[in-house]
Amino acid sequence: MPNIDLPLDQLTTYAPALPQPADLDQFWSATLAEAPDPEPTFTPVDTGLRCVESYDVTFCGYGGQPIRAWLHLPPAALRHEPLSGVVQFQGYNGGRGLAHEHVFWALAGYAHLVMDTRGQGSGWTTGDTIDAAEAPPAQPGFMTRGILDPSTYYYRRVYVDAVQAVRTLRAHPLVDAARVAVTGVSQGGGLSLAAAALVPDVAAVMPDVPFLCHFRRACEISPADPYGEIVRYLKAHRDQVEQVFATLAYFDGAVLATRATAPALFSVAVMDQICPPSTVFAAFHAYRGPKEIVVYPFNDHEGGGPFQAGRQLRWLAAVLEK
Amino acid sequence: MPNIDLPLDQLTTYAPALPQPADLDQFWSATLAEAPDPEPTFTPVDTGLRCVESYDVTFCGYGGQPIRAWLHLPPAALRHEPLSGVVQFQGYNGGRGLAHEHVFWALAGYAHLVMDTRGQGSGWTTGDTIDAAEAPPAQPGFMTRGILDPSTYYYRRVYVDAVQAVRTLRAHPLVDAARVAVTGVSQGGGLSLAAAALVPDVAAVMPDVPFLCHFRRACEISPADPYGEIVRYLKAHRDQVEQVFATLAYFDGAVLATRATAPALFSVAVMDQICPPSTVFAAFHAYRGPKEIVVYPFNDHEGGGPFQAGRQLRWLAAVLEK
Amino acid sequence: MPNIDLPLDQLTTYAPALPQPADLDQFWSATLAEAPDPEPTFTPVDTGLRCVESYDVTFCGYGGQPIRAWLHLPPAALRHEPLSGVVQFQGYNGGRGLAHEHVFWALAGYAHLVMDTRGQGSGWTTGDTIDAAEAPPAQPGFMTRGILDPSTYYYRRVYVDAVQAVRTLRAHPLVDAARVAVTGVSQGGGLSLAAAALVPDVAAVMPDVPFLCHFRRACEISPADPYGEIVRYLKAHRDQVEQVFATLAYFDGAVLATRATAPALFSVAVMDQICPPSTVFAAFHAYRGPKEIVVYPFNDHEGGGPFQAGRQLRWLAAVLEK
Amino acid sequence: MPNIDLPLDQLTTYAPALPQPADLDQFWSATLAEAPDPEPTFTPVDTGLRCVESYDVTFCGYGGQPIRAWLHLPPAALRHEPLSGVVQFQGYNGGRGLAHEHVFWALAGYAHLVMDTRGQGSGWTTGDTIDAAEAPPAQPGFMTRGILDPSTYYYRRVYVDAVQAVRTLRAHPLVDAARVAVTGVSQGGGLSLAAAALVPDVAAVMPDVPFLCHFRRACEISPADPYGEIVRYLKAHRDQVEQVFATLAYFDGAVLATRATAPALFSVAVMDQICPPSTVFAAFHAYRGPKEIVVYPFNDHEGGGPFQAGRQLRWLAAVLEK
Amino acid sequence: MPNIDLPLDQLTTYAPALPQPADLDQFWSATLAEAPDPEPTFTPVDTGLRCVESYDVTFCGYGGQPIRAWLHLPPAALRHEPLSGVVQFQGYNGGRGLAHEHVFWALAGYAHLVMDTRGQGSGWTTGDTIDAAEAPPAQPGFMTRGILDPSTYYYRRVYVDAVQAVRTLRAHPLVDAARVAVTGVSQGGGLSLAAAALVPDVAAVMPDVPFLCHFRRACEISPADPYGEIVRYLKAHRDQVEQVFATLAYFDGAVLATRATAPALFSVAVMDQICPPSTVFAAFHAYRGPKEIVVYPFNDHEGGGPFQAGRQLRWLAAVLEK
Amino acid sequence: MPNIDLPLDQLTTYAPALPQPADLDQFWSATLAEAPDPEPTFTPVDTGLRCVESYDVTFCGYGGQPIRAWLHLPPAALRHEPLSGVVQFQGYNGGRGLAHEHVFWALAGYAHLVMDTRGQGSGWTTGDTIDAAEAPPAQPGFMTRGILDPSTYYYRRVYVDAVQAVRTLRAHPLVDAARVAVTGVSQGGGLSLAAAALVPDVAAVMPDVPFLCHFRRACEISPADPYGEIVRYLKAHRDQVEQVFATLAYFDGAVLATRATAPALFSVAVMDQICPPSTVFAAFHAYRGPKEIVVYPFNDHEGGGPFQAGRQLRWLAAVLEK
Repeated sequence: MPNIDLPLDQLTTYAPALPQPADLDQFWSATLAEAPDPEPTFTPVDTGLRCVESYDVTFCGYGGQPIRAWLHLPPAALRHEPLSGVVQFQGYNGGRGLAHEHVFWALAGYAHLVMDTRGQGSGWTTGDTIDAAEAPPAQPGFMTRGILDPSTYYYRRVYVDAVQAVRTLRAHPLVDAARVAVTGVSQGGGLSLAAAALVPDVAAVMPDVPFLCHFRRACEISPADPYGEIVRYLKAHRDQVEQVFATLAYFDGAVLATRATAPALFSVAVMDQICPPSTVFAAFHAYRGPKEIVVYPFNDHEGGGPFQAGRQLRWLAAVLEK
Repeated sequence: MPNIDLPLDQLTTYAPALPQPADLDQFWSATLAEAPDPEPTFTPVDTGLRCVESYDVTFCGYGGQPIRAWLHLPPAALRHEPLSGVVQFQGYNGGRGLAHEHVFWALAGYAHLVMDTRGQGSGWTTGDTIDAAEAPPAQPGFMTRGILDPSTYYYRRVYVDAVQAVRTLRAHPLVDAARVAVTGVSQGGGLSLAAAALVPDVAAVMPDVPFLCHFRRACEISPADPYGEIVRYLKAHRDQVEQVFATLAYFDGAVLATRATAPALFSVAVMDQICPPSTVFAAFHAYRGPKEIVVYPFNDHEGGGPFQAGRQLRWLAAVLEK
Repeated sequence: MPNIDLPLDQLTTYAPALPQPADLDQFWSATLAEAPDPEPTFTPVDTGLRCVESYDVTFCGYGGQPIRAWLHLPPAALRHEPLSGVVQFQGYNGGRGLAHEHVFWALAGYAHLVMDTRGQGSGWTTGDTIDAAEAPPAQPGFMTRGILDPSTYYYRRVYVDAVQAVRTLRAHPLVDAARVAVTGVSQGGGLSLAAAALVPDVAAVMPDVPFLCHFRRACEISPADPYGEIVRYLKAHRDQVEQVFATLAYFDGAVLATRATAPALFSVAVMDQICPPSTVFAAFHAYRGPKEIVVYPFNDHEGGGPFQAGRQLRWLAAVLEK
Repeated sequence: MPNIDLPLDQLTTYAPALPQPADLDQFWSATLAEAPDPEPTFTPVDTGLRCVESYDVTFCGYGGQPIRAWLHLPPAALRHEPLSGVVQFQGYNGGRGLAHEHVFWALAGYAHLVMDTRGQGSGWTTGDTIDAAEAPPAQPGFMTRGILDPSTYYYRRVYVDAVQAVRTLRAHPLVDAARVAVTGVSQGGGLSLAAAALVPDVAAVMPDVPFLCHFRRACEISPADPYGEIVRYLKAHRDQVEQVFATLAYFDGAVLATRATAPALFSVAVMDQICPPSTVFAAFHAYRGPKEIVVYPFNDHEGGGPFQAGRQLRWLAAVLEK
Repeated sequence: MPNIDLPLDQLTTYAPALPQPADLDQFWSATLAEAPDPEPTFTPVDTGLRCVESYDVTFCGYGGQPIRAWLHLPPAALRHEPLSGVVQFQGYNGGRGLAHEHVFWALAGYAHLVMDTRGQGSGWTTGDTIDAAEAPPAQPGFMTRGILDPSTYYYRRVYVDAVQAVRTLRAHPLVDAARVAVTGVSQGGGLSLAAAALVPDVAAVMPDVPFLCHFRRACEISPADPYGEIVRYLKAHRDQVEQVFATLAYFDGAVLATRATAPALFSVAVMDQICPPSTVFAAFHAYRGPKEIVVYPFNDHEGGGPFQAGRQLRWLAAVLEK
Repeated sequence: MPNIDLPLDQLTTYAPALPQPADLDQFWSATLAEAPDPEPTFTPVDTGLRCVESYDVTFCGYGGQPIRAWLHLPPAALRHEPLSGVVQFQGYNGGRGLAHEHVFWALAGYAHLVMDTRGQGSGWTTGDTIDAAEAPPAQPGFMTRGILDPSTYYYRRVYVDAVQAVRTLRAHPLVDAARVAVTGVSQGGGLSLAAAALVPDVAAVMPDVPFLCHFRRACEISPADPYGEIVRYLKAHRDQVEQVFATLAYFDGAVLATRATAPALFSVAVMDQICPPSTVFAAFHAYRGPKEIVVYPFNDHEGGGPFQAGRQLRWLAAVLEK
């Protein structure tokens, strides 16, 4: 499928003025004020990989609920302490995976925390974390769970988990708290933006083809899930359209980006059917910190893949060296 | 799409011996022992329909949680009390709908209770009932919610709700408790079977193209959702195959049918892609009460539709007259 | 699939000037002048539904051919005579259905006539009426039957049937001829518009996501049937493009709407792939009577469904009370 | 899509005993007794092709209705009179086409008559012939037109047209009536079988991947149209299953084949989704004359295409030389 | 699928200024300077068609490699020598076919050469010609073979073959070299444009729904193959986007059209998904000779089919008569 | 899509007797006799990954052509020399990827050689190796390149490359030649089997969901590519069916498995649409060495993914320790 969105020359200037809830900052400061200390535990695991040192992590997330993660470190013989760190958030429907699965940033010398996504982790990679919450009527999936109120919305819990993950890695004794970056692809990119907005002093943020941005436009033009879950919900609940988008405004990466100031390396794919490029550019243009964006003109949601990974390796090294 | 299952002549004798959990009856008797009194409330609603009298119902379901329903009655001028009753369960992804939507059995002179399905009701028809429970990692949808243990499985809660719905209608002052039937299409058919197994003295059961039967075969041959949710879950959690089917054995309509004794009118569609006919025949052949099955040789999951509705009108009248 | 049409803000002002055949009014007045008296017969049927009184109806349609219908009445105990009436036209490929299928307006207290659509009735609901006419080369379906000349076009016959259905209900002894409305979904909406244009003194018209409007644009942008039948016909008969659209101009709801004056309640779905919203707005803006339109921003051709039904219940009661 | 049918080794012995209507022969002899003299007219047309001499033909078909055709002859300078002849019937949804389109057998030296198919001719190739008959409720398409009774079924009219086409070519002054063959692909193959059964002294018959054989099995296993039209009809008219197949038995190529005795060259494609190979083998094995079948193991409904055309050129020359 | 491109009124003026490589003419003159004499051989074949005289042809193409073709002539009794000629190029994935397959222009009285396409001929029609060249990493298909450099690109070899085919037919003793036209559908249309640019004194060119025009736009908007092969290549080789389009500029029919001067009859289909109409209009508007274009507003890539063939018959006769 | 193949209980005993070319061993011994010394070069590359030491490799493959690869080693500080080694072959359409992409076995402590696949590497991961050979008519893709003769078939060249890759790694000064295993997924699994057959003293072989086994059955039942390329080729070249399968017999993993003796760990996915499980079991049962197979009952071609990777880590360590 070719481009479903604006042509590239219009994308590069697409900067819609999205409405911000009047109490946006209060909502999040109140929410974060309730977050407990992460109190992480780190249990060594033997993955069979000789070049990575791995730990099974549990920390307190939203509501004090236990969130799982992996911590991967370069082996002791190779590391220069204190370590720079990278928190990785996963794409939709995935979790932290098996212990040997997602180790890229550790290979590059970073303390690498892979956060599980509550309730997910039964799709492209597995997970182990419960989402403890009431489930009002919703479309199959996570996008519309509790969507009638910001206080019950699923991503409120996940965004707090993401903040707690950053706190967890920063507090690790081998890690330099001032050199912790956040990254992720798709939903992981959206969580990176949220983390950068809610923890503005992270060292860097690298959102790849980020999800969770400019929800209304995404719902209007994306032919695919997960935005499609919201569309199908609204097909049924025809009377809740405005209420749903009022909730989503509190979680919109293109709104939260106005609160983020860390150096950022975005990526966007012009043929992205799942996270349409205009929604990414909306977030990019709203982003308040120093920023770059890598454009992949013929890619769909796979984005830059290993090319972007290589780009990030070099960019992050340069940013953290400063 | 044509038939994906056995040819009709093999279907009519397809009666697999499905394994029954050793503690099946204890599991359900213990579960039902915990169910509270339904304590329903009935609030009149004005639907704008002059020929139906409607009430907004809330009763206590699993764990005492509030379950919504509609009660529709023939208008006072037309009814012969005490009324026979029909409890209707809804298909997957649907809820009780709007008050004026599902009134068929009331038109036929029955007290007609339409039960909402917890957490669903955001698809083909809407709903209003919360599923209050922890959500471990699951595929989008309801089929794999809590699937690692019978005690946490989503349908444990829904099956109890179904029993409570029957209790609610039977206890209504205008209703003759001895003449209450259960029915439903697809998931509604599966819930009818469960209700007939767990409340063996219901007056009649009419499962249409029932879902939730012979899970393993269904997962192996159905190319469609909702069984596909289980398949996708197992694609990810490759190490949980046996555990998942061990849980499902407690909820299998083709197992529970061996506990049901009320007169039954099944329907089955030979080209059904969603609830393959062999899984329906497995339940039909296991069913212990007097039974009939209407076969629709060229229908997919839409089954007999209005033809079966007409058939049920006549069959139920005859059964309840006896 | 997301929106294939203009964005909502452009839709709400989309009012193209469609060409009108010079002899449009003569064509229809001559056509209607040939229509015989409907001479309906009403045969009671026992549907098993206690709260509706039903009759099997046959009346004379185009060319005097017998057209089938159902008449449903509120039961005698509940009705206030003379009754207001609703004529319901069916969606494409459907007929009047079984006697117990389509009874909604009777439940609301109206005399409810469900017209069969000649030759159709073998799809989503069944029918019983023959289309007696020669069949020149055509694409499978009804859209291109006789399309090379307005006098032989299939919908000429159907539009006359629709007028005869209105005459039939108005002439019923229990009905107040001044309070008869017309309604329908999709093709039924298109027929409602046609009936409102050809019988301008109907009491009200409620076209839901109407079909048969602004044919050329519909053929250019709808990816689906039934408009696709015309597209496929023109793919073959590449030399008949102008002739085909010249015929269709006589039957275009967006042209005929300029002749209709009854109060109207439209509905439109912004993601409608089958009856694209611009074609509905074209008819709405052309409509000459008092009018409202309910917009469903995230629905496809299912439109407002039960939400719109509830809306119509209230609107029609208010309109007829005046 | 791979094979949907039996494996090849089972196909080659697949010879089901299909029920024959008791009055099959009376039905057809009575039907043919009513057929008028074809009384063809031949009007020369200038196609721009110098090597073919073409005529626009009209003859009397079923009910005396005018049926169109093309007659193509080798140019006078090249032909050896009297000519052998080939009547070609077209595939579903196609007609005789434009005058310069279907000239293959004329190039090979035959008098080549291309029969239009009444009412069709708006798909892969165009047509010009009206089907003059009442149209009871039917699925879009031709397969279910008048299907409730053999006397009103669409193919009764078409089969008679096919017989009249053979009569037309045989009676042409340049043609040797004893050397006229019939052929066609798909529906054209089915019509060839019908013609060979109803005109047993045709000189040869070449049905390619014939349609209209063993209807019930075809409906059960083909995932595609046109058999799918019957399936969809039966999805709606759930009460007409036996009546429909009772009608079709009069038109089944695998039944009529038992009445045909001319030398025959069949072809069949093992991966055919539209005319499943078992339905073709059913006809082949039932065929009573001398016969061969060419098997294409990896083809879908495109069958042997130009390879089969070459094969037919050689086979027909050999058969007619005898 | 409806139109994916601009509306017709914008298409008719769509004339983008495409960049031309500075050394375009040198590239092609150097390339052609290396082409050897075609040195064709003509071997008579017996196709079984009495009205066409056919020869199996081999001539020297790019790099002196043997290219296959068929030469079809009107039979001696019918031809007026010297003959006008038509070189036909085939659509993507097809070859020269079997000897009796593609004979249309011979029937019309022309010497008709059907060129095989090297390496292709395993799809809709078969072929027999080897593409002798190294194969760097490429997407399955021919579009990206050698695409990193104009000198290694697959179509460099094919375009030279096309020129050699024209030379071959012109040099045939029965043919009037001044009256040789080129034509083809899709890829055959693209090759016709290339031949007309590289052999500017061909007598006429008839490109039908031509492929290989305005590559970048085609890749951005076509949802289908073969342009999709380039898109998928660039999805992988994200760092080669500019290099790939730099190569393609040498082969772009909308660039080469500026070098062509022969009378031209184009065709374009407004709903073409494979060769979007804007890419055809780009070539048409760039074309420097006298030109016409036939627009098919409701056709996809099948274009005008037999209607265009008839149009070409008349147009070419008129052009060559002048 | 569910299982397209035999049920699991039949799969586990599916062991067809496949015909072996009489000269199979001579063919391969003659082919390998011509293979030159690999003469590899190793150029260090800086990937940015601190925990892997990487080299860009070129060695001589079939015909002495340069084949690219990556060699990844554990960093010097962590390795125990001599190293065990793993040669990894890639899935269809992929190449060696970027230098930092495929490093799994190096992390586990092995010398890890990732072989590029000639001509591929433009799909799911990129490549850099030319396939230098003539390209006769073929379907887009690699499966039918040169398929009319074993000596020209594409996989002859690739299989030799695979042998040369094994030789290359074995000859590396840091590697223990006696402890080199081969592995890969899909096409990589097929190449592993080929390497194990042609280099019988490899230390171990781990084919995951292997491709290139039991070609004829695969072509008959797989609905997907790449086997579909062969099917489409045969759809066109209807006369080459036996010749094609005669060629493929020389390359069939289920035939070559009878020549392999190293310990083997297979995996198979019961719902695999691309490499149907029966074709994998055919190879597994034919395999002559000690062997195990891991069955994934609900997976499609993604197979065991990270679960199988973990399994392989433990299995290979145990095998090489012996």
